[in-house]
Amino acid sequence: MNLLLGSGGFRTEERVANLARHMRAHFGDVDRLLFIPYALADHDAYVGMMVQRGIHAGYRLDGIHHYDDPARAVAEAPAIFVGGGNTFRLVHDLYRFGLIEVIRQRVRAGVPYLGISAGTNVACPTLMTTNDMPIVAPPSFETLDLVPFQINPHYFNGQVHVQEGERLVPHFGETRDDRIREYHEMNDRPVLGLWEGGILHVSDDDVTLHCAPARVFRRGHQPLDVEPVASLREWLAPPAS
Amino acid sequence: MNLLLGSGGFRTEERVANLARHMRAHFGDVDRLLFIPYALADHDAYVGMMVQRGIHAGYRLDGIHHYDDPARAVAEAPAIFVGGGNTFRLVHDLYRFGLIEVIRQRVRAGVPYLGISAGTNVACPTLMTTNDMPIVAPPSFETLDLVPFQINPHYFNGQVHVQEGERLVPHFGETRDDRIREYHEMNDRPVLGLWEGGILHVSDDDVTLHCAPARVFRRGHQPLDVEPVASLREWLAPPAS
Repeated sequence: MNLLLGSGGFRTEERVANLARHMRAHFGDVDRLLFIPYALADHDAYVGMMVQRGIHAGYRLDGIHHYDDPARAVAEAPAIFVGGGNTFRLVHDLYRFGLIEVIRQRVRAGVPYLGISAGTNVACPTLMTTNDMPIVAPPSFETLDLVPFQINPHYFNGQVHVQEGERLVPHFGETRDDRIREYHEMNDRPVLGLWEGGILHVSDDDVTLHCAPARVFRRGHQPLDVEPVASLREWLAPPAS
Repeated sequence: MNLLLGSGGFRTEERVANLARHMRAHFGDVDRLLFIPYALADHDAYVGMMVQRGIHAGYRLDGIHHYDDPARAVAEAPAIFVGGGNTFRLVHDLYRFGLIEVIRQRVRAGVPYLGISAGTNVACPTLMTTNDMPIVAPPSFETLDLVPFQINPHYFNGQVHVQEGERLVPHFGETRDDRIREYHEMNDRPVLGLWEGGILHVSDDDVTLHCAPARVFRRGHQPLDVEPVASLREWLAPPAS
């Protein structure tokens, strides 16, 4: 297995350059990436935006929405790239087009996978650590299950501040750590809170953090802050059951 | 029908006093409020916290978790108060204990209802405009359907800022308006973005905004900002189908 999982927030020159460098090492000389844009509503506009922002790293993005048989497109793809947007919409469409099992099989067989934001959420066992609004009900919260832990993309610490006129004022909604603590009130799996710009590389042998810090949350343990570059495998093992 | 729907963020003296004043006008001289604490994990601690923060407005909060037959507790309640926390956990438990239909019937028959945050989300037709993390899968996204529109509690405009050391830095996740726009890519109902501290009063005759501004989102229309006190009924009518 060979996965690259990005947090999101690839909006600065440095972050885009980091991502492109990792993508080239990850995908090598494949001639195209099968791009899955289902998390956004306008698929063609999405492909155009990725190229304009340089997030294709020079590769041809081959939109799955142009194929009559999306499952076959996955089966024949040399590389898979699942983009961000709304995770519920993405999962809804992965089920609608019957893609969960075929993507899982292909990636487990070694086809390189890149996920960003929602595309990182769906690489986990469930969508339960997404930040997105549940705008559509997928048939299940279970996702690709490519890694044995959960990731929370766009992670940050502490209280949010929002604009009120010209001022930034504190907002009293649950913090991200509150939300992940609530996840662990009902679930066992470790959660990796991945700051924006962060990239996780997952191979059969290791899980390596690059480009941004992260916080590891394990049920019944204090959260643990980690800095890149770091191997996280020991912290993200599934809990003994 | 007689509903009081609070946004959340009742964390300042002024906001707590506003809420208490509205609660007393709303509930009058009932001897207790049946309190539904399922959105948080620790039900007794939740009741204690509400009293400590003064959010009971002097009423006795009668926790539904002390009843062997929660549906019967609803059927006999003089007033219903659904607290905040995680909306998915709340909806999961409302279905688990078979409470959706009995609450709906009682409130439609005139029993006064108060919801805060998650308790406001579930008064809507669906949970689709919650901000919460999907930590558990409820059997359905359909909720109490007491009002014909959706509410987004803890609403704010613009980009979030988060703490990085001592600095506040912009965060690139979707804004709240992005999320509600995505809701309208897949759904028709109007959405009311209710700022923290805001309270909506819904009767058979009117929908009235109190204590904080709100933004009305209607599919295919520009968002509309409204200030309290305002009647919102004309903006929140279901779309003609």
